[in-house]
Amino acid sequence: MKKIKLAVVPGDGIGVEVVPHALKVLDTIAEMHGGLSFEYEHFDYGCDYYLKHGDMMAEDGMDRLGQSDSVFLGAVGDASKVPDHISLWGLLLKIRREFELEINVRPAKVFKGIQSPLRNPKGFDLIVVRENSEGEYSSVGGRMYQGDNEIAIQNNVFSKRATKQAMEHAFRLAQSRRRHVTSATKSNGIFHSMPFWDEVFKETAAEYEGINTVSQHIDALAATFVTHPERYDVIVASNLFGDVLTDIGAGIMGSIGIAPSANLNLNGKHPSMFEPVHGSAPDIVGKSIANPIGQIWTAKLLLDHHGEEEMGRLLLDTMEQVTADGFLTPDVGGDKQTDEVVDALIRQLKA
Amino acid sequence: MKKIKLAVVPGDGIGVEVVPHALKVLDTIAEMHGGLSFEYEHFDYGCDYYLKHGDMMAEDGMDRLGQSDSVFLGAVGDASKVPDHISLWGLLLKIRREFELEINVRPAKVFKGIQSPLRNPKGFDLIVVRENSEGEYSSVGGRMYQGDNEIAIQNNVFSKRATKQAMEHAFRLAQSRRRHVTSATKSNGIFHSMPFWDEVFKETAAEYEGINTVSQHIDALAATFVTHPERYDVIVASNLFGDVLTDIGAGIMGSIGIAPSANLNLNGKHPSMFEPVHGSAPDIVGKSIANPIGQIWTAKLLLDHHGEEEMGRLLLDTMEQVTADGFLTPDVGGDKQTDEVVDALIRQLKA
Ligand SMILES: CC(C)[C@H](C(=O)O)[C@@H](O)C(=O)O
Ligand SMILES: CC(C)[C@H](C(=O)O)[C@@H](O)C(=O)O
Repeated sequence: MKKIKLAVVPGDGIGVEVVPHALKVLDTIAEMHGGLSFEYEHFDYGCDYYLKHGDMMAEDGMDRLGQSDSVFLGAVGDASKVPDHISLWGLLLKIRREFELEINVRPAKVFKGIQSPLRNPKGFDLIVVRENSEGEYSSVGGRMYQGDNEIAIQNNVFSKRATKQAMEHAFRLAQSRRRHVTSATKSNGIFHSMPFWDEVFKETAAEYEGINTVSQHIDALAATFVTHPERYDVIVASNLFGDVLTDIGAGIMGSIGIAPSANLNLNGKHPSMFEPVHGSAPDIVGKSIANPIGQIWTAKLLLDHHGEEEMGRLLLDTMEQVTADGFLTPDVGGDKQTDEVVDALIRQLKA
Repeated sequence: MKKIKLAVVPGDGIGVEVVPHALKVLDTIAEMHGGLSFEYEHFDYGCDYYLKHGDMMAEDGMDRLGQSDSVFLGAVGDASKVPDHISLWGLLLKIRREFELEINVRPAKVFKGIQSPLRNPKGFDLIVVRENSEGEYSSVGGRMYQGDNEIAIQNNVFSKRATKQAMEHAFRLAQSRRRHVTSATKSNGIFHSMPFWDEVFKETAAEYEGINTVSQHIDALAATFVTHPERYDVIVASNLFGDVLTDIGAGIMGSIGIAPSANLNLNGKHPSMFEPVHGSAPDIVGKSIANPIGQIWTAKLLLDHHGEEEMGRLLLDTMEQVTADGFLTPDVGGDKQTDEVVDALIRQLKA
């Protein structure tokens, strides 16, 4: 019996609503599989935890999460309770950094049964590989002077190591896909980091044969995601550019509520972490209308990561059957509640 | 007779193709007006100039451009001749900086006759006010170490003065529109500059009564441009965020080839500069298919700036008539050439 130990962090807002549903789905998958089981340890880290304890997680929180095979996370942040940059740097970004989750993989594709806002989405199917550890997300910098003269300085830090690693991951993915990698750049406007980014991309491209490559400025790339998303296969992007592109990717799928992501540790020293792209969505909390697909598709990426690609494929196919059958939450134009979608999915899986 | 002295810089690629057409349109407008004339001084600054002279503009270039009432620019950059960061920082970004063009105003709306890639664009009509002088576009920073250990550091610099000025401009614009301002932020992930940005936005908002405000993270904002662009009126954004949002704005209009922009000098010491959002598009140079609408809509913004709002409105309305009549270049699904669109426009203006 293969046992996968998951550290479960529902976090804030709708994270708390959708995570238990995704665990039910994982249990169903395990049951069907026969030789697979999940063991969950639950952690109540998040903004409420902060209000009680003055910190987003326990002092030994990272150690305890670190004992799992993977972390399964809902959403972090609720600005009505804790300023975002405190809650995020104290939990989500802390996990990404300290577990060295240097790669964030985020697929986007036309999802059966979910209407794209695009008139003609042309069956797009792409993956963004986001550098997940440095770049524009940095705590280096600060503020100076007071009042009218104040300035804020934000240092973006790009290392050859992490940049190259993200690019290599993109090239490896492209090898088993349509053999095309796009680099998201802005070397015409951003003076130091992006020409550097371009050089590393060129160097990496030279090491992979038979892969088509193109560099595109982030502004044009973002626009082309809307006008011609079918042009892309794998896109490699810096931390911020990847953040923006993946939300647009979710947008053209039809809802941020369905997009999944995998934060990968590549050195084997820490667990990887799986979380949907959407946030905690305080505005819809308690209404039972959160879309569970983002969290469940994320569970599919977790299955893939642990070598259960066959179960992963079955889960994704079944999700698409269920949405095609009209089990849709309001964000994607339906009137179903979260649990109705999940119940239909579990029924369909068992059928 | 009111005379407007324009420094004309067609620049590179299709800039050279569309600028003369836009000048013909301006002349037609002047003729119809009766009391208005344009005087042009032409400058051949750009990548070819660089190949000949080793610089993107003459040594006294800025002085000479500075003697005009406004600069009318086509597009800058051709990476096959000069690396982008050299050509842009040597001409386009140089003009923006040295003429203190600290505000970049970029409207986007459903354009009659041009099909949006969105299934339901819901008549969106928005303006992005982009901080145009600092932020992520900075030459502060550098690179260190060699080979595998190399790092690149890019310093984003945000001043209270320029940040506040952009926000104030957005609020003033909103007062004569739908009284709604959205601030593009990323204070959950970008540690120093964006919480600062949020504070300045809050402070500015408190100074303008009766304007609805919202702060939205750039990732969600970019996605919502695709799913619900009708929600926006005026958006204020940093240099990079504004850059990305305005290309998406162009994308949802149907083509980057139609979007205009005004780079405004607010202290009266230098001319303002007007340029379309699109670039030099080397791939379509010489084919006579460049969309002239971006450059001509930009001329409309120039007319507005010089107090000729009535002529500006007439020009925009006539452009929309012409596109609605099917005079469309290939980028917007037509088969017309650049000059056919412009000829139809001039005919229609005179009618
Ligand atoms: C060419 C480039 C430097 C420029 C920018 O990023 O500002 C362009 O994209 C724009 O939007 O005007
Ligand atoms: C919540 C925020 C810090 C985070 C990010 O920007 O990385 C989120 O937007 C994401 O994409 O995972």
